[in-house]
Amino acid sequence: MRATILHTTRDIRLEDVDTPQLIDDGDAVVRVVASCICGSDLWPYRGLPEIDEPRHIGHEFVGIVESVGSTVQTVQPGAFVIAPFAFSDNTCPMCERGVHTSCVNGGYWGSDDRNGHFADGGQGEIVRVPLADGTLVATPEQPDEALIPHLLTLSDVFPTGHHAAVSAGVGPGSTVAVVGDGAVGLSAVLAAKRLGAARVVAMSSHEDRQRIAREFGADEIVAERGKPGAAAVREIFDGLGADQVLECVGTADSMKQAMLSTRPGGRVGYVGVPHGVELNIPAMFGRNVGLVGGVAPARAYIEELLPDVLDGTVTPGLVFDQTLPLDQVADGYRAMDERTSIKTMLSV
Amino acid sequence: MRATILHTTRDIRLEDVDTPQLIDDGDAVVRVVASCICGSDLWPYRGLPEIDEPRHIGHEFVGIVESVGSTVQTVQPGAFVIAPFAFSDNTCPMCERGVHTSCVNGGYWGSDDRNGHFADGGQGEIVRVPLADGTLVATPEQPDEALIPHLLTLSDVFPTGHHAAVSAGVGPGSTVAVVGDGAVGLSAVLAAKRLGAARVVAMSSHEDRQRIAREFGADEIVAERGKPGAAAVREIFDGLGADQVLECVGTADSMKQAMLSTRPGGRVGYVGVPHGVELNIPAMFGRNVGLVGGVAPARAYIEELLPDVLDGTVTPGLVFDQTLPLDQVADGYRAMDERTSIKTMLSV
Repeated sequence: MRATILHTTRDIRLEDVDTPQLIDDGDAVVRVVASCICGSDLWPYRGLPEIDEPRHIGHEFVGIVESVGSTVQTVQPGAFVIAPFAFSDNTCPMCERGVHTSCVNGGYWGSDDRNGHFADGGQGEIVRVPLADGTLVATPEQPDEALIPHLLTLSDVFPTGHHAAVSAGVGPGSTVAVVGDGAVGLSAVLAAKRLGAARVVAMSSHEDRQRIAREFGADEIVAERGKPGAAAVREIFDGLGADQVLECVGTADSMKQAMLSTRPGGRVGYVGVPHGVELNIPAMFGRNVGLVGGVAPARAYIEELLPDVLDGTVTPGLVFDQTLPLDQVADGYRAMDERTSIKTMLSV
Repeated sequence: MRATILHTTRDIRLEDVDTPQLIDDGDAVVRVVASCICGSDLWPYRGLPEIDEPRHIGHEFVGIVESVGSTVQTVQPGAFVIAPFAFSDNTCPMCERGVHTSCVNGGYWGSDDRNGHFADGGQGEIVRVPLADGTLVATPEQPDEALIPHLLTLSDVFPTGHHAAVSAGVGPGSTVAVVGDGAVGLSAVLAAKRLGAARVVAMSSHEDRQRIAREFGADEIVAERGKPGAAAVREIFDGLGADQVLECVGTADSMKQAMLSTRPGGRVGYVGVPHGVELNIPAMFGRNVGLVGGVAPARAYIEELLPDVLDGTVTPGLVFDQTLPLDQVADGYRAMDERTSIKTMLSV
């Protein structure tokens, strides 16, 4: 089968590799229907950090189960399944507490599972899924093709935006600002509105992204960044700032912008993988601004979010502004690297 | 009247000063019945930072109202009142959100109020209280003398421990560890149990403090500090750590200990004024450990905590292991500096 391999900085190729097979009794083998490129894939693509040997890449996919190991019970061949961006048993004390990314038996795509067997990511044709019972979520029936992009967001970007909102405590009546207009930031806008936020400010200077933010329910757009952007958010919210600010980038600048946009007693929910983030702890302490979040336990949220996706209440797949066949994966990376695509879906 | 003045590092004296008078219409003048020395008073006492001119000190007191300005409505002369460690109007958008320490009109004892008039702290005989309607909480009737220490803790240390617990999300069934065995840490043990925590670990190596922690409901004591201490806490909680860890010290070491004691997906509630604290942000992100808290809005909690103090459900005043007359205030500082007293009450 073919899978995407990152060779070195900005050198990414679709290549023939061994077809994954069932290894452990709890495995499933899934034929990928659609996958996509994540903002976090761009870090190694850009050489941060530089990779020292070719590696599989990708961690978001939906597909059809081809075969299952002898102990698998929750999914059967033929089922349409959503794979979250980490695999987990869904039964350990961490999964029970909703922290599936810290599953004591789990792991991440593109690395070895607990038995030392490599688990390919999803930017390929076939994936061996460890801990299939805990990891995969099957839809009640085969979805229409039009639903595929929306379902695909459940593997990462929509639950990640949701995690930012949940971590920060967004609820009915909340005032919210979102830092970052990538697919996660846009998803955070959608998630905040879905959770009942009264007023959501999306921070974006790009017209196409502003438009999606509006479609996702943003009440206001702030185009400025940094201190002027934060000042504009505070101005909107009585000079004080938002109750919750969702930080969906992960840089030092974006975190500063988020902190300065938060009212005293408010919380920053962060899901942007931190790169060089520094915090002004005395200021956070004096203003009672909390920092909550982390790598999103997508698996914990899929069942909650799925019905709204299936019945069209939410349309998170609008973050995909480009769909390419898998053999053009390199073009997809280039487009996202150059920010000419918000998020690229790969059809298989 | 006499008030406590810090002259320079470890040089503290009770001195004659001008007796505070009503200045603004919203003021009250309160005769102090009891005050106390705070762990945070020890920072300037120890020269961190070194002070450059003599200053009033103190911010925790209870007393009897002597006179009130023309607009004051909620307290009357003769009332027994609790003064939180910051003054606030209790009506601004920040107070409405329970963040009285960020009151847009408020301030801290020992500095000027919004009208530029100095507001003395409480380690003296008489205090002018700005924004008396918003700041002071009167008891329904004159309390028995035996209740005074318990009521005095409502000015700071008990609500501060409570704030750590509330910020971190302690509730029924929580597993909790408390870093710090000073008066705030001990109060945090009491607050966590009061909020329904299932199991609370107090981290203390001092027998007298362990005893109070037990009286406050601690289920386990961990005497080790640092990494071994955190490992012992994790061991107690299924190898994972506590749901909530309450950081009541504020040093780099204590914060590390708190972070290492917290389970993935858990939260550190911090109320120790941070001095040199650094955070391992990638580790917090990967483990989904949040940091919440800050300077406690004591005023927000007094009405909630007061009934339990009045009826003896809780006895937070056990943190006072020494009571001295006000003119021995220097001995009180010395004892707390040398850690021979947990917390010293000053009777006037």
